[in-house]
Amino acid sequence: MIRLSTSDPGFARDFEALVNARRETDADVARDVRTIIASVRDEGDAAVRAFTEKFDRHDLSETGWRIERAECVAALDGLAPDLRAALDLAAQRIAAYHQKQRPADSDNTDDAGVRTGARWRPVDAAGVYVPGGRAAYPSSVLMNAIPAKVAGVERLVMVTPTPDGVINPLVLAAAELGGVDEIWRIGGAQAIAALAYGTDRVKPVDVVTGPGNAWVAEAKRQLYGVVGIDMVAGPSEIVVVADGENDPDWIAADLLSQSEHDPTSQSILFTDDAAFAIAVAEAVDLQIGALATAHVARAAWDANGAIIVTASLDEAMPLVNRLAPEHLELAVDDPQALFDRVRHAGSAFLGRHTPEAIGDYVAGPNHVLPTGRRARFSSGLSVLDFMKRTSFLALDPASLARIGPAAIALATAEGLPAHARSVSIRLSGDQPELKL
Amino acid sequence: MIRLSTSDPGFARDFEALVNARRETDADVARDVRTIIASVRDEGDAAVRAFTEKFDRHDLSETGWRIERAECVAALDGLAPDLRAALDLAAQRIAAYHQKQRPADSDNTDDAGVRTGARWRPVDAAGVYVPGGRAAYPSSVLMNAIPAKVAGVERLVMVTPTPDGVINPLVLAAAELGGVDEIWRIGGAQAIAALAYGTDRVKPVDVVTGPGNAWVAEAKRQLYGVVGIDMVAGPSEIVVVADGENDPDWIAADLLSQSEHDPTSQSILFTDDAAFAIAVAEAVDLQIGALATAHVARAAWDANGAIIVTASLDEAMPLVNRLAPEHLELAVDDPQALFDRVRHAGSAFLGRHTPEAIGDYVAGPNHVLPTGRRARFSSGLSVLDFMKRTSFLALDPASLARIGPAAIALATAEGLPAHARSVSIRLSGDQPELKL
Repeated sequence: MIRLSTSDPGFARDFEALVNARRETDADVARDVRTIIASVRDEGDAAVRAFTEKFDRHDLSETGWRIERAECVAALDGLAPDLRAALDLAAQRIAAYHQKQRPADSDNTDDAGVRTGARWRPVDAAGVYVPGGRAAYPSSVLMNAIPAKVAGVERLVMVTPTPDGVINPLVLAAAELGGVDEIWRIGGAQAIAALAYGTDRVKPVDVVTGPGNAWVAEAKRQLYGVVGIDMVAGPSEIVVVADGENDPDWIAADLLSQSEHDPTSQSILFTDDAAFAIAVAEAVDLQIGALATAHVARAAWDANGAIIVTASLDEAMPLVNRLAPEHLELAVDDPQALFDRVRHAGSAFLGRHTPEAIGDYVAGPNHVLPTGRRARFSSGLSVLDFMKRTSFLALDPASLARIGPAAIALATAEGLPAHARSVSIRLSGDQPELKL
Repeated sequence: MIRLSTSDPGFARDFEALVNARRETDADVARDVRTIIASVRDEGDAAVRAFTEKFDRHDLSETGWRIERAECVAALDGLAPDLRAALDLAAQRIAAYHQKQRPADSDNTDDAGVRTGARWRPVDAAGVYVPGGRAAYPSSVLMNAIPAKVAGVERLVMVTPTPDGVINPLVLAAAELGGVDEIWRIGGAQAIAALAYGTDRVKPVDVVTGPGNAWVAEAKRQLYGVVGIDMVAGPSEIVVVADGENDPDWIAADLLSQSEHDPTSQSILFTDDAAFAIAVAEAVDLQIGALATAHVARAAWDANGAIIVTASLDEAMPLVNRLAPEHLELAVDDPQALFDRVRHAGSAFLGRHTPEAIGDYVAGPNHVLPTGRRARFSSGLSVLDFMKRTSFLALDPASLARIGPAAIALATAEGLPAHARSVSIRLSGDQPELKL
């Protein structure tokens, strides 16, 4: 963990280093991923089966390629009642929030008599990647599946690796609740390639979303354009802006809730109270040892944690915008005043009683959010990621006569005579002139 | 040009080949682009200058790096009156259409007392790529710049190569009209890298849009994640669905308006009238020779043109959806009935008096559209490409007490105790328990 103060002489340089620190693995997986993708494209199911045997250590022809609906229903029915109730509440609240994201179509005719508009439609098929192992989170299944279903996607495919053949029943329960239509027990770059190109067994999809390791992320990047993807995701992060009126234990808990995700996770506190900064650092040290996830949390906090003391919280806000954090907590009495100054953040958590973790599970907004300063230009996962817009245009002879001559002038200036002619030929009843 | 009929015995196979035909260059530019990007990231302006000297044959330290505002104003003032009026009309109509795309913020408090919402903000800076040479279109400058300005982007940067030092005044005039704030006479992958990483001279931007050659497209793909990008663009295409009541000359003109763009462009006609199909083919042959762009148009039409006769226009619509065309003309008396069956298209042009070219220039909707079947999952350029959404969340003690326990149950099930603790610590006034 590093401690900075805006009053330090070297602050600008140190903060710049913090902003530019890359926590993403630089492992050169690009070549491996290219090979895997090419194999799946050329050899289809045989390649998928071979890579699964190699990386996940089970033979799909023995364990089966798909997980059947009945298994998901059984997993859902088998949940402890409080867990079932929690998952239901999460699904309901996520659906309610995302319903409001459905875009409106438009259709207007203007003074020139030109009709213009836009119409939104869902993609035909979407694929959701769900990691195996430590990062197999039922909450992520809901956060990816529900926006797709709210968008109206008819075929929602889930792919998830089952290392050594072991299936996570919580993930299956969430898939059932999220409305997933088919599940394949495949993972890694080979699963992304199968979804993008299709194989004999797996029909292709139009959009692939969901978190994954470096291979999965690189496969999505390489296949972007063949399919749509949600985003290039990196390590998770939180920035907390807190005054000295907070309970240091609460803020320490919030910082640690991010640190426990992964050794590359980052937690940063901005405060205008130097004594509070010390109290939070002590509280983190006290709490961290008691966590079952202490090993990960300590590694992340030591390597990537930061506490930054500013002269005022106002002074913190431009620094927060530089970081463009995935998660931003504003733990003050009047969070709205600070939030009004936020230009870049994936999601904001306002006030002392809004820990970031509530947004990870049950609040409603999506927890798939831009990381690594990408909130400067991108947004959390939404219904829009599973839809696309067709613009449209309708003219009649009168409106074409009004605006057509301008199109002809511009097309001619651009050296595109056939463009000009497709307009001019409609403006006159005369025999078309062939000398252009 | 190929001729198909759905009544042909081999139609399914032939149409499948048409759908899957890749017209995009497979030139392996990826390695070159990686080298260029790495050079610009490491050496900044020196690398940009060297690549410009190599590829564009002029020395930036002699010709100057920037094009000043005064040159743009002079170019605009120097336009012929009809061209100036056409450009003004285009700018006004494009702005009016894109104004309607500005997304609404949301802010709601639900029955559980949980406040949730979303807030849209523009990116700080956007870069527009404008090709040099044949594809330097002032209309594209407007189509990229105006949505950015409507979004509220404060710093709009244009990069454009000036091969041999030659500047296109029409492009400068459009830049002035589009509200471009700074112009750099650099192009290729080196310009994209400069915009993404920044150099001493060029400050980095958050989003890069605009068309370009294979190097530019690959640079955007490789830098996606460092900056936002609009899309991976490919060769242009049109599908025309027309009954036998159309003037064959009009439809031939529409097909040629696409073919003249580039030898890789594609024009496809669907009609339910075999005699009309023949008449259109003849009209294309007659018109094509008279075009100043005949060389390109003929190459594209010969290689990628298609006329497909169907038993009915209804039968054509599922085939159109398979193609998911960039541009779709529905040249019939009741285009709405056919349009209601369109699932995938970048932009639709309804009726006999709506040639696609009118949308390229002055109608208002954007002409930057998804190509190569990407309308299955992506949309034309819009104000949304220059904005991003911050979701937000505010709870109070009562609402946290209501939904907090569900979050604790899910966090615990996912093996994330610090997540659970950041909620539970706020639910009780007691001393926090340290055994997790």
